[in-house]
Amino acid sequence: MIRGYTLPRTPKGKSSLIPNPPWHYTGNVLAVEYLADEKKAAAFLPDGLELMSNQCAVYFIEWQYASETGEEYLDPVCSQYRETIFLLSGKYKEEPVAYCPFIWVDQDKALMRGLIQGWPKQIGYTWITRAYGLPSKAAPLEGKPGKYGAALSVYGRRLADAQVTIEKESETLPSPTFAGAALIRFFPELEKEKHDQPVVHELVQLKSRDVKISPIWKGPAKLNIFENPYTELTDLKPASVLNGYKFSFALTVDDLRHLNSLK
Amino acid sequence: MIRGYTLPRTPKGKSSLIPNPPWHYTGNVLAVEYLADEKKAAAFLPDGLELMSNQCAVYFIEWQYASETGEEYLDPVCSQYRETIFLLSGKYKEEPVAYCPFIWVDQDKALMRGLIQGWPKQIGYTWITRAYGLPSKAAPLEGKPGKYGAALSVYGRRLADAQVTIEKESETLPSPTFAGAALIRFFPELEKEKHDQPVVHELVQLKSRDVKISPIWKGPAKLNIFENPYTELTDLKPASVLNGYKFSFALTVDDLRHLNSLK
Amino acid sequence: MIRGYTLPRTPKGKSSLIPNPPWHYTGNVLAVEYLADEKKAAAFLPDGLELMSNQCAVYFIEWQYASETGEEYLDPVCSQYRETIFLLSGKYKEEPVAYCPFIWVDQDKALMRGLIQGWPKQIGYTWITRAYGLPSKAAPLEGKPGKYGAALSVYGRRLADAQVTIEKESETLPSPTFAGAALIRFFPELEKEKHDQPVVHELVQLKSRDVKISPIWKGPAKLNIFENPYTELTDLKPASVLNGYKFSFALTVDDLRHLNSLK
Amino acid sequence: MIRGYTLPRTPKGKSSLIPNPPWHYTGNVLAVEYLADEKKAAAFLPDGLELMSNQCAVYFIEWQYASETGEEYLDPVCSQYRETIFLLSGKYKEEPVAYCPFIWVDQDKALMRGLIQGWPKQIGYTWITRAYGLPSKAAPLEGKPGKYGAALSVYGRRLADAQVTIEKESETLPSPTFAGAALIRFFPELEKEKHDQPVVHELVQLKSRDVKISPIWKGPAKLNIFENPYTELTDLKPASVLNGYKFSFALTVDDLRHLNSLK
Repeated sequence: MIRGYTLPRTPKGKSSLIPNPPWHYTGNVLAVEYLADEKKAAAFLPDGLELMSNQCAVYFIEWQYASETGEEYLDPVCSQYRETIFLLSGKYKEEPVAYCPFIWVDQDKALMRGLIQGWPKQIGYTWITRAYGLPSKAAPLEGKPGKYGAALSVYGRRLADAQVTIEKESETLPSPTFAGAALIRFFPELEKEKHDQPVVHELVQLKSRDVKISPIWKGPAKLNIFENPYTELTDLKPASVLNGYKFSFALTVDDLRHLNSLK
Repeated sequence: MIRGYTLPRTPKGKSSLIPNPPWHYTGNVLAVEYLADEKKAAAFLPDGLELMSNQCAVYFIEWQYASETGEEYLDPVCSQYRETIFLLSGKYKEEPVAYCPFIWVDQDKALMRGLIQGWPKQIGYTWITRAYGLPSKAAPLEGKPGKYGAALSVYGRRLADAQVTIEKESETLPSPTFAGAALIRFFPELEKEKHDQPVVHELVQLKSRDVKISPIWKGPAKLNIFENPYTELTDLKPASVLNGYKFSFALTVDDLRHLNSLK
Repeated sequence: MIRGYTLPRTPKGKSSLIPNPPWHYTGNVLAVEYLADEKKAAAFLPDGLELMSNQCAVYFIEWQYASETGEEYLDPVCSQYRETIFLLSGKYKEEPVAYCPFIWVDQDKALMRGLIQGWPKQIGYTWITRAYGLPSKAAPLEGKPGKYGAALSVYGRRLADAQVTIEKESETLPSPTFAGAALIRFFPELEKEKHDQPVVHELVQLKSRDVKISPIWKGPAKLNIFENPYTELTDLKPASVLNGYKFSFALTVDDLRHLNSLK
Repeated sequence: MIRGYTLPRTPKGKSSLIPNPPWHYTGNVLAVEYLADEKKAAAFLPDGLELMSNQCAVYFIEWQYASETGEEYLDPVCSQYRETIFLLSGKYKEEPVAYCPFIWVDQDKALMRGLIQGWPKQIGYTWITRAYGLPSKAAPLEGKPGKYGAALSVYGRRLADAQVTIEKESETLPSPTFAGAALIRFFPELEKEKHDQPVVHELVQLKSRDVKISPIWKGPAKLNIFENPYTELTDLKPASVLNGYKFSFALTVDDLRHLNSLK
């Protein structure tokens, strides 16, 4: 009798890469809204979703995580990770919903929790300017206007970077936003002649609870997406950049909504 | 219409973390056979398998990989990775078969190919002594007796290390061996009230083809498994260490055998 | 004519690993004061210093850095690093002064700036719990009592870890403190027969300016130093642990005080 | 009384990042000879050297290291590293001598040994195709013609990559070659008003002994040097690419030749 919410499953169930939900997250976010080529963006959507608009967003996030009883944040090597998320503006049965074509995290635990939710996670390294609490030439000051940067590198190549100058508070989050995003859960088949018949292939929608959002800052932004031989991210390059944002976020995940089977 | 063998699935299908099989591998292996506590080892086996003996093996492998047409080895950051595999001696319907309780790789692509095959892969960092072709105090000499070491670190903690002194050629591979191993394919459910009802949970058996094995070297070995708060690997500690091995291996994977559903 | 404050020196002087001082730093600190074996601690002090007491401190710091005009914090991969510092309580000519036997950073730029100041820097990976601005099970709350952890790994082995429960504000910094520490600047000779005649070997004292310190929090702490084959850090193991601290720090460095030549 | 060939110096002298010379190395090398802009290349040479020709070479090397008695290769995390070296064709008093403007390694120990010899080392990540001993689509075959690639990434950006198709054995090493290279030993001053008066600044020449070289393979090559905001390496871009090479190398270092003081 072996146990555990994920592999590896073991006699005591204490070795799983990920423990049972709920999973608690809190993160500092730098985000940029931008417009992509509409036709190219539309081509990224799976069956069941249509493009709502060519407005995209990229989120760079410095997360800390804990399970219900694990207090993982006290052994922070197991708890901290950084993430870059790209989102498209989709709709599902006329309801607006974000869709994620690309996402990178720097930790296997975050990657695995992501796959379970339908995030198409890969390993990549995100860096985000931090605000600090004391005036310094080395940092913007917490809670004040200031300049921030972020960058994503994958397999030793820079894929994207951004700069945001936050100037004033904003009433609204960037759009599209990741809460409630539609995603694809997918698990391939390896048996010969069945490589195109995945055993899991479904459209799902994120559910989160206990969402908390800090005051939101906003201002002008720049965004670069660089050529890369291994990803079609460049088809989502900015035609024009709208606004940059900075805010903090906390949420809990222990549920998921099944939308459509795609098998 | 989005395409790809794995996530992320995109319009041209060129962004998948992993391309369609076949997948080609070649690796240099350092291995140690040892005896574990029989009762503890037996407890690690899933439904459908029984313990055949308390003989275990650990493999430390320096791999290079390519897909059918990708020539990934020409951009080696995408192709090279290192792996540590622990194997138990199981049997399935009276036939001997290895079973893998724990495995670590240092790359997302290897992790994903592993999950598809049922390997319970996590990210960990493996280091293995290399032989070189010139006499030096810095290395054992290729094709000669010599001393080798290997180690595994996970989340900044050393989990295991080994030393092997190869002395002479061996007629046999270490046992249990990874070709034909039984594994668990597993994909959890996240919908509330169903966290214990995985959508994929099956016993499978590896199939590989075009297997090539170099001459095999053998000799005395040492193995340490260190205390760690996050894994039950310590329940598979060596009671006694048998032999160490060094050899090279090449194989191709594009198939899998389904044994039992475990749902 | 090649230029630059450090190697590599190049025609435009833009390639140096480190630009000209001043260097600006801001960091979040978790620290633990403790008592070590007095005789063992005394043996770590260089000529010119004596042990003042067996009180030691370890600092885990998450830094952000910028040069005078570089705004490196906008490309944070070049600016952010984490550090673990051990300090002993020394005295120089009857004046109390901290002395650093061991320090680890995770970035070459930080390592090089350190060597120039006399810090005996090596590469190591530090992890420190972060406070966040929203209530969550994943983090302590900024500006409130809470629990924090930190850990140091070097070459894939955990060397030390700590936990601190901050409870109340403190009037004082931990002691010994790193500002004004005495350090050894050292550059070895490689010419044969002169390996024991370093070309630089001097006792120096750190100078910093524009030092800013946040409110200081304090509370009970735990500290572990683990066995390791490659460092004598274990000779500075805690006999008893005093207090833990959390605070933020900003400073600027562009000067150094020469104390004694040790050649 | 504290001891050690480098910092950190400690009571038993067992904590130094680097032990006393001699240092033993063995490596597998992929190299590319090319021609750069002559005027730009000449500008990289320090006082005391002149440009001999506009022929440059880049070496990508997978090293294993050990000290005289350390057998570091048995704990390979401490022994293995990868390196990218750029060399210019200089002359010193009419004698041809290579000069190194840029070099990157992925390990602090290699960085420190380098600084002591005058290599302008920084941290960077090098990847090099490996030959294996069994036929496979995943690797070129040892000792046979085949295709190889290499790449260098620094702070998450690709700086350079190369491909070499080895076709036949060569009588000669690539030129310029790293044995006997001229380098700059350099240690800055931090005391205010003296930032331009380094305490160590001298032209030196590498000495190595017990050099062993394998058969040398040669063939056509490609080389890319990519734009980067932080290095003048792009001023050494290939105008045309000559040959690629593959060979193995072993050497021992315990001496250095002082040429000119540059203070």
